[in-house]
Amino acid sequence: MQYYPKPVVRLIRALSRLPSIGEKTAARLALHILRAPRQEAEELALAIRELKDKVRLCSVCFALSEKDVCRICSDPARDASVLCVVEQPADMTSIEKSGVFRGHYHVLQGVLSPMDGIGPDAIRIRELLQRVDRGAIREIILATGTSVEGEATAAYLAQRLAGLPLRVTRIASGVPMGGDLKYVDQVTLGKALETRHDL
Amino acid sequence: MQYYPKPVVRLIRALSRLPSIGEKTAARLALHILRAPRQEAEELALAIRELKDKVRLCSVCFALSEKDVCRICSDPARDASVLCVVEQPADMTSIEKSGVFRGHYHVLQGVLSPMDGIGPDAIRIRELLQRVDRGAIREIILATGTSVEGEATAAYLAQRLAGLPLRVTRIASGVPMGGDLKYVDQVTLGKALETRHDL
Repeated sequence: MQYYPKPVVRLIRALSRLPSIGEKTAARLALHILRAPRQEAEELALAIRELKDKVRLCSVCFALSEKDVCRICSDPARDASVLCVVEQPADMTSIEKSGVFRGHYHVLQGVLSPMDGIGPDAIRIRELLQRVDRGAIREIILATGTSVEGEATAAYLAQRLAGLPLRVTRIASGVPMGGDLKYVDQVTLGKALETRHDL
Repeated sequence: MQYYPKPVVRLIRALSRLPSIGEKTAARLALHILRAPRQEAEELALAIRELKDKVRLCSVCFALSEKDVCRICSDPARDASVLCVVEQPADMTSIEKSGVFRGHYHVLQGVLSPMDGIGPDAIRIRELLQRVDRGAIREIILATGTSVEGEATAAYLAQRLAGLPLRVTRIASGVPMGGDLKYVDQVTLGKALETRHDL
């Protein structure tokens, strides 16, 4: 790397800090940017700056937003009485893509992970309970991941929400659609059997 | 992607244009940049701009350089009578890393590829012949790749340089060091046998 001119080295270093980008990939990307039209490089640099300047978290649900209240929270066509609780903005995007959910979200911005020092106060649990306190919520769907942390977070929230006059549900775990049973891991298969439903 | 705020979508698009970065990777990178400290994002944006503003090609050897003449071409400790001809700046970096070459370079900025319309005039061959014309060069090492195009480019250059009062050599092809013969492809093994040398 030290054989490249300094500005190239600087870009390689900056790119290497991104997840899954090692030094070799970073060098390839830097040399591509060097050869690419100036406009393409300008657009990339500008997009990075604008991202930091223009994107914030929705003050209601903590989704990514350009405004104080996000597009979904301010959409009168969506059902504000059903909240889908997810870990990260990317999870929300996946659910939106599925097209089956028409309610509102609550993005925790993390999961409980005592090993990493992430307790209930480090993620947006207090804000979720405040939304519930304000009333008018019929159902909370816990859509955190099925990792140990995601499951623990869902269990913790279910416990905190127990006794309140609302339905608390958890997204189903099981065999992925289009999946072949012989390739599905034992834990998933166990869960799929355990939570079987009538047809 | 359309479920993210516009600035995020814009960055995902800009990142997707980079080689080996698909839309999913681009989304992951964009969300990382969003979470990263502002300074890290600033450094990346600045490094992209500076790359375009400060890096140019050395007017002698066409390597990447911050100055009109690159560090190697202007280094009196290096042997200007031996030229190593490579395809791209990255190849030159690899050779520099090996630490065995103390001469000068000539970066063709491409290879001959008639299928893609890249003829001798599209790469820095004329400039190489001009350097040779100016005299004082004892040896030219053809270090283009061992792809079909790299081999063809080396053959073409060998023919253009034939008859001139200088030695024209080609880097050796063969079994990579530390390599196991059973994993080496037939063409490489054939070449290694053909160009065997006495011990």
